[in-house]
Amino acid sequence: MEVRDRGFSKYTRLDRALELISSEVKEIGSETVPFHESGGRVLAKKCKSKSDVPPFDRAAMDGYAIQAEDSFGADETNPKEVQVIDSIEIGVSPDVQISEGDAAKIATGAPMPEGADAVIMLEETQRENSKLKILAPVSPGKNVSSKGEDVRAGQKILEAGRRLHPWDVGMLASTGNTKVQVRKRPVVGVAVTGDELKKPGESLDSAQITEANSHALEVAINREGGTSARIGKIPDDIEAIEEALKENTHRDMLIFTGGTSVGARDLVPDAISNSGRLVFHGVSIRPGGPSAFGTVKGTPIFSLPGFPTAAHISFEMLVRPALRMMQGRPWNKIRTELNAELERKISSKLGRSDVVRVKVKSSEKGYRTEPIRVTGSSILSTMTEADGIVVVPEDKEGFSEGKVVKVGLLNRPVC
Amino acid sequence: MEVRDRGFSKYTRLDRALELISSEVKEIGSETVPFHESGGRVLAKKCKSKSDVPPFDRAAMDGYAIQAEDSFGADETNPKEVQVIDSIEIGVSPDVQISEGDAAKIATGAPMPEGADAVIMLEETQRENSKLKILAPVSPGKNVSSKGEDVRAGQKILEAGRRLHPWDVGMLASTGNTKVQVRKRPVVGVAVTGDELKKPGESLDSAQITEANSHALEVAINREGGTSARIGKIPDDIEAIEEALKENTHRDMLIFTGGTSVGARDLVPDAISNSGRLVFHGVSIRPGGPSAFGTVKGTPIFSLPGFPTAAHISFEMLVRPALRMMQGRPWNKIRTELNAELERKISSKLGRSDVVRVKVKSSEKGYRTEPIRVTGSSILSTMTEADGIVVVPEDKEGFSEGKVVKVGLLNRPVC
Repeated sequence: MEVRDRGFSKYTRLDRALELISSEVKEIGSETVPFHESGGRVLAKKCKSKSDVPPFDRAAMDGYAIQAEDSFGADETNPKEVQVIDSIEIGVSPDVQISEGDAAKIATGAPMPEGADAVIMLEETQRENSKLKILAPVSPGKNVSSKGEDVRAGQKILEAGRRLHPWDVGMLASTGNTKVQVRKRPVVGVAVTGDELKKPGESLDSAQITEANSHALEVAINREGGTSARIGKIPDDIEAIEEALKENTHRDMLIFTGGTSVGARDLVPDAISNSGRLVFHGVSIRPGGPSAFGTVKGTPIFSLPGFPTAAHISFEMLVRPALRMMQGRPWNKIRTELNAELERKISSKLGRSDVVRVKVKSSEKGYRTEPIRVTGSSILSTMTEADGIVVVPEDKEGFSEGKVVKVGLLNRPVC
Repeated sequence: MEVRDRGFSKYTRLDRALELISSEVKEIGSETVPFHESGGRVLAKKCKSKSDVPPFDRAAMDGYAIQAEDSFGADETNPKEVQVIDSIEIGVSPDVQISEGDAAKIATGAPMPEGADAVIMLEETQRENSKLKILAPVSPGKNVSSKGEDVRAGQKILEAGRRLHPWDVGMLASTGNTKVQVRKRPVVGVAVTGDELKKPGESLDSAQITEANSHALEVAINREGGTSARIGKIPDDIEAIEEALKENTHRDMLIFTGGTSVGARDLVPDAISNSGRLVFHGVSIRPGGPSAFGTVKGTPIFSLPGFPTAAHISFEMLVRPALRMMQGRPWNKIRTELNAELERKISSKLGRSDVVRVKVKSSEKGYRTEPIRVTGSSILSTMTEADGIVVVPEDKEGFSEGKVVKVGLLNRPVC
């Protein structure tokens, strides 16, 4: 029996594979960036406010700053009358003192004057020259946004491991966090093996195909917060692969595609084993079963199948979580899940997690989902058509038509 | 009565505001980029395959290429016997001809030899030297991935207006689309008004606040496919604002924050009106009501409120759709929606769309959602805490506790 006919001695369960990966992947270091360059970066440690927000008591409505007591008992038939002694604008410190019977016109966002404890809205007043009729009562503190009400100095504002959204960046700016400690971007070396592969645009003879995985992976790595470093094509030769492994251990992670199936030309897992440590080869997922993982000089290395769909699903199920582990982010739940009614049954083999690509449709009653028909793991178009995936776990033989299943959204980064 | 006490003469309904915006916003031009730089870009026109994928008939399984007829009637007790005359590897054009009674060993992905029309899987054979026993029948075409089966040359592969995902880029590579026509990135000028505003890190006196909106907007614009061009702070002076408008009409869009409320210092809408055309001022959304929109020399201009939460919601409800219109993308449905049970009732005023920030929790039965308590539109922390928004439409007075509502996910780009 030839080597390529052996089959895998055993498949590692998906959850176990992720455990093994998490025990090998180390968190990457951090760097300090100006807050305005922190969008999309991952916080390395929790962030506290350096100031009170708002930084002073201010009006939350356009109206008049008064002592609330002056409004007690007021209504439209029995208005209370006060004297307007000043007008307070935004951006200017008021130098007026509000005593009993006084009012100062105030704009939303303007600082409250001394002595005043409430703002009566414009709509609840009637003004005649300097006389102001109050038509409704307000309680102390009403329509005032008090100093530190939104965020207090020293308060935690953002958790470590958070990927910063636009308004997180606004929060950093507002709270005096002009510099932010974020995770470095993991640099991921991407190599492809396969003598049959040609670069996009190169002409093909009758047995050659265009190499697409490395380009898709580069975009996917960037989207998960990493930076890709192109290694390029390595010949189908174990020594060349070992050489490429050794030359690239300075990267934070390496991804090889191709050369993972058990067989004469399936060289990457053997090269990992010869150069370092092969942690697993063969995972109970489909597509993506022939995936392998190991380390060389401590650098985590993924060996993904060469077929695009298998490479994609392996990336989604194994590598994306690893990139998140590296950045100190949650990695167990990485896709937004929708509940959707299955439009056609899904069959699956016990002992294997089937990762079924699906389309999602919105209907009056909720979401419906349709598995995309495939004939093999090479069907690239399933990857562009899919809105999400349905995972049939190892202990299920599938899902029947009409069942409500969880669809993990793809192509929609969940940040 | 002072100018700032007038109130809005009328609020434009949200859907009408979007209609008005869409009639002013023009689609941006396109540019050609190499496929490997197209990730995250928006396709300017539909894309067709330039080649068949796969480019030749190939084996979809490891096994033996045979004439299917030679396997008919085979089973484990009555195996059919054929002669192995060659072995076909990946990447090499086979020069063997399979006739009746012949077989060639073949690896998954290797080109099918002439004459063969099926692959019998390794597991369904027994081999002894050059003799091969076939233990099961296969039909013609079985385990063969035929030329063009996945994508045919000339077939449409990706729609215009699609934002390219990692595996879309793989698809472009595989189909010979080495250059891609994508939309230019809209360049959006961002200006802030407000004499009370200081730059992050600058010290504040007792009436000043830190300017955060422009930084949040820059990240948000980038995330929606645009590029931000910082205009900076403009004095609270109508002539200065008109000057800034005129100097920046070469941008694809302008966003001003601050100076939108009706009042003495609410200058941006007036400046738009003086310099060009004010299309609306005041939208029936909360927060974000004082938003305005107009054009100067054909350039669309948004005037957003200065309070961060109001600015964010206005961006989300008005500007993001406009950025998508500009790039030829769908703009009516821009957020993934989850059905979630409301943990606390929401009250709203008739005639106004309340945009309520919510947290989303996953439970056994599905999602639950909790409105975040707010006291005013200045509450910045609601923007970092929110997972999504629930919109109470103009004709509803709110939603009762326990109702299942649609949560539009925020902070999760829907691409």
